[in-house]
Amino acid sequence: MSILVAIEGWDVPSWVERFQRLFPERKVVTLDEPFDRREVHYVVSWKHPHGALSGLPNLAAIFSLGAGVDHIVSDPRLPEAPVVRVVDEDLTNRMSEYVVLHALAHLRQLPRYMAQQRDNVWEDDRFQPAARDVRVGVMGLGQLGRDAAAKLRVMGFQVLGWSRTGRDVAGVETYSGEAGLDAFLGKTDILVSLLPLTEATRGVLNLELFGKLSQDGPLGGPVLINAGRGGLQVEADILAALDAGTLKAATLDVFEAEPLPKDSPLWTHPRVIVTPHNAAMSHPETIGSLIADQIRTVEAGGELTNVVDAGVGY
Amino acid sequence: MSILVAIEGWDVPSWVERFQRLFPERKVVTLDEPFDRREVHYVVSWKHPHGALSGLPNLAAIFSLGAGVDHIVSDPRLPEAPVVRVVDEDLTNRMSEYVVLHALAHLRQLPRYMAQQRDNVWEDDRFQPAARDVRVGVMGLGQLGRDAAAKLRVMGFQVLGWSRTGRDVAGVETYSGEAGLDAFLGKTDILVSLLPLTEATRGVLNLELFGKLSQDGPLGGPVLINAGRGGLQVEADILAALDAGTLKAATLDVFEAEPLPKDSPLWTHPRVIVTPHNAAMSHPETIGSLIADQIRTVEAGGELTNVVDAGVGY
Repeated sequence: MSILVAIEGWDVPSWVERFQRLFPERKVVTLDEPFDRREVHYVVSWKHPHGALSGLPNLAAIFSLGAGVDHIVSDPRLPEAPVVRVVDEDLTNRMSEYVVLHALAHLRQLPRYMAQQRDNVWEDDRFQPAARDVRVGVMGLGQLGRDAAAKLRVMGFQVLGWSRTGRDVAGVETYSGEAGLDAFLGKTDILVSLLPLTEATRGVLNLELFGKLSQDGPLGGPVLINAGRGGLQVEADILAALDAGTLKAATLDVFEAEPLPKDSPLWTHPRVIVTPHNAAMSHPETIGSLIADQIRTVEAGGELTNVVDAGVGY
Repeated sequence: MSILVAIEGWDVPSWVERFQRLFPERKVVTLDEPFDRREVHYVVSWKHPHGALSGLPNLAAIFSLGAGVDHIVSDPRLPEAPVVRVVDEDLTNRMSEYVVLHALAHLRQLPRYMAQQRDNVWEDDRFQPAARDVRVGVMGLGQLGRDAAAKLRVMGFQVLGWSRTGRDVAGVETYSGEAGLDAFLGKTDILVSLLPLTEATRGVLNLELFGKLSQDGPLGGPVLINAGRGGLQVEADILAALDAGTLKAATLDVFEAEPLPKDSPLWTHPRVIVTPHNAAMSHPETIGSLIADQIRTVEAGGELTNVVDAGVGY
């Protein structure tokens, strides 16, 4: 009943230590060492190398250590086992911190004032738009999108929401499916992307979509905040849209390739805020406990929760 | 029954136009032109030159165009007339936008990541504190402080409040008076100053006070956000505290002298965010209507509201 920690790009020892502490009686193994493949019942994964999980005959579940599961379900040699998302209130709160912070930063022109400060310039616009004059459109109304929408509303923004299947959120004008997308985009001044990455959403943040955003909002052009997945966005299109004025500004936490390559023009674009994929970090303490609860539940004869629907990929 | 627009540092014509539109039948005059002093019944003021309001024998009220009234009550030759504060939901919301934006910016280390972006550095701290781990202490629990406290709570922060006279705010641990100040400061990781400027509060944000803030919070040191009045702060003390590590960082919207002098070290300090006194701007549309309502009420025999208590100065 050992646990395989299959992580790339994150700090492996802190996760191993956490799971060892939660399950002192079990073996916690990693991909860097030899282990008995028949003993592995559970995998905890963040971007495991594709193929690394094949040949685990007794696998009972694969747990994602972050909000997304695309890094797991995209493995063409993924074994047959339930894939489990993490649904963590702490991670949700952190994502909303990030979304509200960057929506307010664009509303209140923080990058401009910080640039003015560097240039020793005291200058203000007398009449800035208020949050109530600005419409924030949230794409993706799962746990993360719904929480962000609610908090954006408290801050005074007008909030719209779009989801693939249609979901109601209190006080939020919601749209759904292909049919509702254009109407949603046409009323959106700040677009917040919290979509999962699936075959249907790959590259959805492209020039055609940006052209459908509201072009006459009070911010002088639409703003993009992508805190979802890098694969959702076409970075060449973001740059083209910024230069054409189709986008006014952007905050990007995720990228087509991470770390963002040194020669990406996004690094130096004056109207882009780049953060290093840390909008909502998974914390070993919290995530570990949630996964341990699931393992204990299933071993006591219960059901796993938050299992990914293989058909849609999230 | 003419209206005197007595403004320094703001755009006079837009305010004159607004009041002329609200009261087309009355004279709207300014300090820049000759006018009949006996005709002036109302003054709308923002930092009027001291003495400029003397010799107005029929003055019925002086309205402040912004949230503060210290610029009015500090005039040693102020005529005997009620001084009226503006209590404007729009201004309150904007102030809360600013406070939440900067509390989140410090929580999520936005200045650091923006500096990293300029240096083309992809680096993240795996485990940032969450809002729920950070205590924000709001000094001043008037309309602005209470609204900011409520919104900070929604974002997940632990919120404390301090006021001179003691005020309850739902979900907020409140302290009052000199007796409660040290306990309040000792539990505060981010100090938000929304105090009025009075004889009692001038220079209150000084080295002694900074030394009482919580020094073991999760941000690595206390953070100051002053969106109240510049006269509350001792800028030499802020710089000394930053350099000694008594303060970790600061956001300052107001200054001892405005515009902030070109040679102030605050401009270039790497852990200070300077904004040009625009946390909460008065908008002629909204403020004008509020003042017009008050004038119409008093002329219909009603009472002025939000009249300043001359004894305490706010």
